[in-house]
Amino acid sequence: MTTKSSKIVMARRFDGMPQVSDFALQEETLAPLEDGDVLCETVWLSVDPYMRSYSRNMKEGDVMMGQTLSKVVESRHPNYVVGDLVLYYSGWRDQYVVKNPDDPRPWPLQKVNYIPEGHPSTLSLGVLGMPGATAYFGLNEICKPVKSGETVVVNAAAGAVGAVVGQLAKSQGCRVVGFAGTDEKVEYLRELGFDEAVNYKTMGSLEDVLCSLCPNGIDIYFDNVGGSFSDTVMSHMNQFGRVSVCGCISQYNNTGQSIGPRLQGLLISKQIRMEGFLVHRWKDQWMECMEALGALVREGKMKYRETTVDGFERAPEALIGMLQGENIGKMIVKCQSGGSGGDGDGDGEQCKQ
Amino acid sequence: MTTKSSKIVMARRFDGMPQVSDFALQEETLAPLEDGDVLCETVWLSVDPYMRSYSRNMKEGDVMMGQTLSKVVESRHPNYVVGDLVLYYSGWRDQYVVKNPDDPRPWPLQKVNYIPEGHPSTLSLGVLGMPGATAYFGLNEICKPVKSGETVVVNAAAGAVGAVVGQLAKSQGCRVVGFAGTDEKVEYLRELGFDEAVNYKTMGSLEDVLCSLCPNGIDIYFDNVGGSFSDTVMSHMNQFGRVSVCGCISQYNNTGQSIGPRLQGLLISKQIRMEGFLVHRWKDQWMECMEALGALVREGKMKYRETTVDGFERAPEALIGMLQGENIGKMIVKCQSGGSGGDGDGDGEQCKQ
Repeated sequence: MTTKSSKIVMARRFDGMPQVSDFALQEETLAPLEDGDVLCETVWLSVDPYMRSYSRNMKEGDVMMGQTLSKVVESRHPNYVVGDLVLYYSGWRDQYVVKNPDDPRPWPLQKVNYIPEGHPSTLSLGVLGMPGATAYFGLNEICKPVKSGETVVVNAAAGAVGAVVGQLAKSQGCRVVGFAGTDEKVEYLRELGFDEAVNYKTMGSLEDVLCSLCPNGIDIYFDNVGGSFSDTVMSHMNQFGRVSVCGCISQYNNTGQSIGPRLQGLLISKQIRMEGFLVHRWKDQWMECMEALGALVREGKMKYRETTVDGFERAPEALIGMLQGENIGKMIVKCQSGGSGGDGDGDGEQCKQ
Repeated sequence: MTTKSSKIVMARRFDGMPQVSDFALQEETLAPLEDGDVLCETVWLSVDPYMRSYSRNMKEGDVMMGQTLSKVVESRHPNYVVGDLVLYYSGWRDQYVVKNPDDPRPWPLQKVNYIPEGHPSTLSLGVLGMPGATAYFGLNEICKPVKSGETVVVNAAAGAVGAVVGQLAKSQGCRVVGFAGTDEKVEYLRELGFDEAVNYKTMGSLEDVLCSLCPNGIDIYFDNVGGSFSDTVMSHMNQFGRVSVCGCISQYNNTGQSIGPRLQGLLISKQIRMEGFLVHRWKDQWMECMEALGALVREGKMKYRETTVDGFERAPEALIGMLQGENIGKMIVKCQSGGSGGDGDGDGEQCKQ
């Protein structure tokens, strides 16, 4: 028996902001399962900022990369049964065969059985998945020690990572100032308990805002954005400030080399530590992190929101929308009408697009 | 009894590279000693790169900052006797009264009694002083863990800090590539055991040099220079590379804001840690460091050289010369003909200017 499946490829290299016409939907035929194989059907697909920067290493015709939340529909592997919910770096495919589910490169086929009751399984693509871990390790490991009373600045704060960073920092007694790009997002940050929330598109001078909202300087800067925003934030850092360089979404669609002030003098006089990271560095501590974040979700101390786009074939729109800041919380694509989770149960609210 | 003393002040704010005419020699009268006071006569004066950047915080008429190696000539304090050699942040003065020798701010009056036999006491201003500690902590703490086999790049490598960094890294099994600005300095780096030494003024393209000399990339970058040199080095860093941001001497005399490539994307993809520091952070571990460096000096594994300028009144020339790269090893100013040390005994060689 063979199975028809769809995949979405990068048909043309992105030049600046990706366009829907840069993608193509293609059919493929999956080979019959052999012993040890698992056949999965994608229920939810994740779109994340890293895809834009990693696409530089792709060739035209390559399947778009990314993680999916899927359902096992056929299994010839003893550890997986039909109906299991699983996470996998399958790329943008609506069905796929996993040849070696235990292969740790880049990541094994992971069962989603750790989501607190009453919360959607789609959290495995958000707060209780890669974005949540990015926030957790990027704050607690890169910026350690995170001390009560410190001032934390986070940008793209209403996104999948930023919202978790802010709430984690609050739960550790920090004063949190978040930046986002719409009034609705700013309102959301206030609901999440951010001490200050600012619409960077309408605020006027960031310099003035920081003087006013961070009068004692900034101890921790969790940077998802980069560019000139960061130049200004850096100049407000305190002695022994720590900068978690998580993303530079402001630069991903740049076509040329971006330049800004040279920071060396500032790093020296303020003794600042600045570190970039990729979250898979902490693979060995992953489930500890999921337990810690899961406990906060269970206690209502870690709220979340999801923005969903309906239809596998609309994944390119979802990616472009996310890069343009259209989402609040995690942006995900619903691929199957029968998919569990992601329906706004639990503490989560949902915005459909 | 009153004592006449000389001091050198910043008479005019520096605009770009300091000029001799920006300084002025002034006389002052020291008050008689009271109980607890110590009168010191400067024997050697240190000129260091940090003075150029710190001068931005000085007013016209302020005494130039800096450390001296001095001799106690009168003491009304039980812990100091006439003839003691002492280090002090006295500023550029040929005689001075220390009112409270134990005051730890910025640093107490420190006896120089820890220099290995057969080596000059002036090492307390170099390898066995602030510059040595800068190299030691800046490498071992900021870049930790320093692993055998790693590739280390250091610039201003023939200077007081760089030469120690290179030898320390060699003693830990690293492969060390040093950059300096004259063929004589390059020759000196080879004598010190650097694996590769390059004259950056005549090398042509740094990009090509790094491709050739660091074919496996760079793990540790000890940066004394900053600017475009750093931009290029950074692009050759390996995964988990560490950058010790010690100085940016290429930028100190800039009159405007210098700009260069934005590094965030690079920091993320290579997971680079970049940290600036001021060496007094490790005040509590100072003497451990001096013991470790002293042991290397004693064993002949830490060589040094000094460049001396004769005459207290020539300190401005010495500072300017050092900023222009005229020194090999530590640049010091001989203030008293009767001064002990600094005369090229031990393993040290000396260049007089």
